[in-house]
Order: sequence, then structure tokens, then C-alpha cells
Amino acid sequence: MALMDMASTMIFTDCSSSSSSTARLLHFTSTKVQKFPNTISRFRRSNPLQIGISNPKFSRTIITHCSSSSTSAIQTNNEASATVIDGKRVAKDIREEVAVEISRMKDEIGIVPGLAVILVGDRKDSATYVRNKKKACDSVGINSYEVRLAEDSPEEEVLKHISKFNDDPSVHGILVQLPLPSHMNEQNILNAVCIEKDVDGFHPLNIGRLAMRGREPLFVPCTPKGCIELLHRYDIPIKGKRAVVIGRSNIVGMPAALLLQREDATVSIVHSRTKNPEEITRQADIIISAVGQPNMVRGSWVKPGAVIIDVGINPVEDPESPRGYRLVGDICYEEASKVASAITPVPGGVGPMTIAMLLSNTLLSAKRVHNFR
Amino acid sequence: MALMDMASTMIFTDCSSSSSSTARLLHFTSTKVQKFPNTISRFRRSNPLQIGISNPKFSRTIITHCSSSSTSAIQTNNEASATVIDGKRVAKDIREEVAVEISRMKDEIGIVPGLAVILVGDRKDSATYVRNKKKACDSVGINSYEVRLAEDSPEEEVLKHISKFNDDPSVHGILVQLPLPSHMNEQNILNAVCIEKDVDGFHPLNIGRLAMRGREPLFVPCTPKGCIELLHRYDIPIKGKRAVVIGRSNIVGMPAALLLQREDATVSIVHSRTKNPEEITRQADIIISAVGQPNMVRGSWVKPGAVIIDVGINPVEDPESPRGYRLVGDICYEEASKVASAITPVPGGVGPMTIAMLLSNTLLSAKRVHNFR
Repeated sequence: MALMDMASTMIFTDCSSSSSSTARLLHFTSTKVQKFPNTISRFRRSNPLQIGISNPKFSRTIITHCSSSSTSAIQTNNEASATVIDGKRVAKDIREEVAVEISRMKDEIGIVPGLAVILVGDRKDSATYVRNKKKACDSVGINSYEVRLAEDSPEEEVLKHISKFNDDPSVHGILVQLPLPSHMNEQNILNAVCIEKDVDGFHPLNIGRLAMRGREPLFVPCTPKGCIELLHRYDIPIKGKRAVVIGRSNIVGMPAALLLQREDATVSIVHSRTKNPEEITRQADIIISAVGQPNMVRGSWVKPGAVIIDVGINPVEDPESPRGYRLVGDICYEEASKVASAITPVPGGVGPMTIAMLLSNTLLSAKRVHNFR
Repeated sequence: MALMDMASTMIFTDCSSSSSSTARLLHFTSTKVQKFPNTISRFRRSNPLQIGISNPKFSRTIITHCSSSSTSAIQTNNEASATVIDGKRVAKDIREEVAVEISRMKDEIGIVPGLAVILVGDRKDSATYVRNKKKACDSVGINSYEVRLAEDSPEEEVLKHISKFNDDPSVHGILVQLPLPSHMNEQNILNAVCIEKDVDGFHPLNIGRLAMRGREPLFVPCTPKGCIELLHRYDIPIKGKRAVVIGRSNIVGMPAALLLQREDATVSIVHSRTKNPEEITRQADIIISAVGQPNMVRGSWVKPGAVIIDVGINPVEDPESPRGYRLVGDICYEEASKVASAITPVPGGVGPMTIAMLLSNTLLSAKRVHNFR
């Protein structure tokens, strides 16, 4: 069975280490774009399909509910129930740890880490992400710097600000909020961020080092780093385990697979061209799904006792909700939580970890440049 | 079953795109080093275990022969016989194609590609590799430049020559023959080669681009590129196929997995920490093995009809051979060739492809810099 086709959805996400990295909005019809003010995601205009699985063909049937009465044969034990991996709590712990370290750094060497964000244009969703990042920085004591440029600014204007931040010793991390206006070359702009301040960890030099044995990346991309951190904090062993990563995006799936491999898991990557994703996924001790298809992974895909990290944050229509929609993961939680030994909920699982890891990366950058331990 | 332990072997290889990238010499005892003059490999002194599988624990029992009378249960059909993938012939074809292109380039724009090799010290094996590369260059019309430095040269001397070659427009590829003397920092030196001339493709920026969707590496490492080229030339489909790469080295296993993934295979990487390599390998439509353990992959590991690319070149003791040894792959050819649909022999499979790909990369570099199509 190939991954489901889902022609009626589009992929929305905050690629710049926002509070949720694979959140998606649905187009309920091809002409009507459902808007969720102040919500989770933004459309990555420049290359929407790069997120989640590659070239995903989206199913016309969106599974908004999954239950054990489905046709999918599942092995469940109604009495068994997986440990819920509480990303919200772990993210809070990490923020507190970061705040303590920042305070110690300030006391001992008088340095306060700084994060600069460049926002071009007036997209409301982008403005929301930037505001959330600023709030998160404030809460742990990171200085945040913001540049807002008009939609019609020339590319050179963005490059000028990046260059200024590259040279500014009070800035330890630089984010360019995506998407950029269509007249700008995103790759040029992202490549201009110096690798020592690339707290998103998306620079190919960082990814190369992540892939290579004996090399160390300067920064690990925030969402996959958050996934592995959850495994660590719940004492879930990785070494020697079979791991299946569903989705091969540059920002989640691929780096998550590289991280699992670095920790000596035996990794398989399942994607839109995989012919038998269910069969392969069922071999996994650890499943990380970052594909953006609501409830795609049914209980029957899960080996009893497996650990599931669900990166997907998919809004599905829900007339019973006051907002008209609710959020579900890639994993059919209702079914999978009866089979797995541990599982992240959506929301409250991986989502809160991304921004916590961004703060952690910014602290790491400041520590490194000042050789502070 | 974990991968076999093999404490009495050490790993030898030419990491600088020599004619064989994962050839190994055996230590038949812990004190006596078996020497193979004028042969295939050289000891990568700086980090021998990075080649092939990571931290390999080498078996005390070396399988020098494998046959269907072994205890390993195998599914064979004595009448079936795999297509032999003739790397020697394909490599010859590629060299001829490269020679034609070089001749056309010279005629049309007066440019001849150039490859520079830096050799430090007087290791006989290294000298042999450099000589072979020079011969290969000569045979297709690539200019080769060679710098030989004394064993006790300072690191700065090597860096100075790299810098000179970086600036020299007649040089399109630069190789530093490994291993370097122990007083030199290999990583520093390799990083000094400008990425536009890194025809080995080992620079982390190249590896990062190889890993990322939507990015293109300037060069693909020669041996894994040779593996994929063999699949292409034999019209073996990759898209949607299950592929298992055995070994996760920076120079073969990892980039081979990334290449297969770029071609839409569903890839699993098996390594020394994998608990059930036989079971996982048996799921593969395509097996690439680059592990350096003679005859490790038995017939029972192979799904009937699978395609096998055997990168291992392992010398095993053979009193009947005039040289006292013979070369075998990682795959038990006798068994596997009865199960597979196609298989590379050792020698004459992947081995000859590596240097052909080095020539191809050097041509590619010259074409790119001169915008010649």
C-alpha cells in the first residue's frame, strides 16, 4: 500500500523553528482557504511540498476520526495504555534549565545571549510566530532583536541586515522568518547567515556534519532535536533499536533519521514512494512520524510496545469544536496508544519542544562563542 | 544475531578515491602484519575504524570459503544464476566516454581538465595509488599534477600547496593522499581544499547537500557514485524499492544510503549495532554492502531476485594461490549468486568504478568552471 493520496490539503508550517514545525492547515475546498487566526501555522509559499514527505500526493479522504471499529485490523489490548510523553512539561523543564544557565552566564561573565529575527512583509501568521519567539526569549532572559521590512524591500536590504547581525557580537542566533516574498531567493538569504549563528541548524554544512561520523554539527535542527530529547528524558533506549522515520523533509524527517543513526539505532525511512509503509513501520521499536497526514498511522502499523513520537500537527474539521477544527497528529492516537508503550499527544507533545530547542540552541551558541561552560 | 566479531583484522583502505575504496588487509595474528606488496589497500592510520561499519568488532573466525554446505540455511536454486554486473566493463565504458568528452572540450574551448595529488611521506602503498591515479588520468587525457613532500614536512607546507592548487585555474580537482603523517591534522587539511575542487566529494558541505532535498552536491563521493552508476547501467530500477546498505562509513555506506534515498528507494542502514542484520537484509530488493568482512552476507540473507552490489574487497589467506591470498567480497558470492538476480563480483565489480568516477568528477569540475556542456 502506498501512502495515501490527499489532493485536497496543502501544507502549512513555520520553518523557522516556530512553536510548531509541521503544523498544517487544510484547504477544505480548492478555492476556499480556511483561516485560523492566531493559530499554529503558516504557509511556506516558496516550497510547500518540501515539508513532510516529498512530493506528497494528498488523499481526497481525510480521516478526522479513527477508532478500533475501522476496517484496519489492529492488535489492541484495551486494558493496555501507553505512557503519555508530556512534551509540554519537558519543554517547560528545558526552558527553566535554559533560564538558569542564562542567569549564571550573566552573573559570571556578564553576557546575555541574543536572538535576532528578520521579518519581511506583513503576514499575520508570520508576525504571530515572531511574537511567540520574542515572548519565549523574554521568558528565559534571551535578548531578542527584531527587524521588520516592507514586503517590497529589495533582497539586498535583507542581506544587509543579516550581515549586520553576523558581525554583531551581541547576537548569537539569527532567524529569517519564512516565507520570504516571492521576489527574494530564499536559498541565497539563508546561506548568508553565518554558520556560527545558524541556530535553526538548516545550513548544509551543519546537515553534512550531522550525517558524518566523527564530525559534530554546530547546531541540530530544533524539531528533530526535540524528538530525541523527549526519548532521552523518558529514558527510552535508542542504541540497537529499530527506528522508522516517516517523512524525509529537510527540517524534520531527514535530520531525525541522522540523529537516530548517530545514537546507533537501525534506521529506515518511509516516504511517499514506499510501497509497504505499514509493514515496515510495524517493525519499529521507535516511530517518528513527520508527514502531515491526519491519523495516517493506524494501530495496525504499530508493533506492541513501540514508542511513538508524533511530529504532525494537523487541523481537521470538527463542527463540535468552537473553532470549527481540532488538531490531530499523523498517528491515530486512539488506536496507537493502545498498542504502543509510550506516545506523544497532539497537541502537547513535540510541538512545545521546538521553541524550547531554539532557546537551547541560542544559549549553546552564546556559550560556545564565549567559551563558557 | 549481531554482526560478527572479528578481533584479528584491521581495516585498510584508500580513502582518496583510489581504485578500491574498501579493500582490507588482514592481520592474521595480532603481532604479524601480513604485507601484500603492490596490492590494493592502505591503512588509514588516522581513523581506521571509520571505514566500513562503525566501531566494528571483528570476528575471530574469518570465513575464507562459503558454500551451500554451511550451517547457514539458504534458499538456493542451483539452476538459477544471477546476472554478473561487470564493473570492469562499465568502468572501461565510462573511461572511454570521459576521454571523448575531454577531447571534445579540448577541441572546442582549448581546456584540458587537471587533477592534482599531494602525497606526503614515502609509504609504498600510497605511492602505488598515486601512480595508478596518474596512469588513469593519462589514459583519458586529464593532466595530472603531483606534489611529493617529505614525511616530516610541516602541516603548513601541505596547506601552502593546497592553497596554490586552489588558486590554479588549470587544476580542477585536488586529492590529498591519505593517510597523512600523524603530526598533521587531517580534518584541517581536507577542509582546506576548496569545495569546487573537492572531487572526492567528502567535504561536509557536499555531504549536507547530498542529504538535503532540493540541494545538489558539487561532487558525489566516487565509490557510492560508482555503485549507483552500476545499477543505472544495468537498468535496475531503484524508485520504490527496498534498499539495505550494510555499513555506514562516511566514504561509502552513508553517502550510498543518501544516493539511494534521492532516487526514491526506501532505505535501511544495517551496521555493527544492528541486532538482526540477516532479517533486515533479507527484505531488500537492493543490497549494497560496504563493511569489509569477508563472506559475511550469506545466501540466507538474500531475498530471491535481489540485486547485490558488493563494495568489500577482502584479502583472505589462500595457500593455493601463488600470492598466498585471494580477494573476496562482503558477500558470499557462491551462495548469493544462486539467490540474487544480479550481483557484482569481487574483484571486477565496484572496484574499477571508483577511479572511473574520480575521472568523471574531474571532468565534471572542469566543465562546470568553464560552463562547458
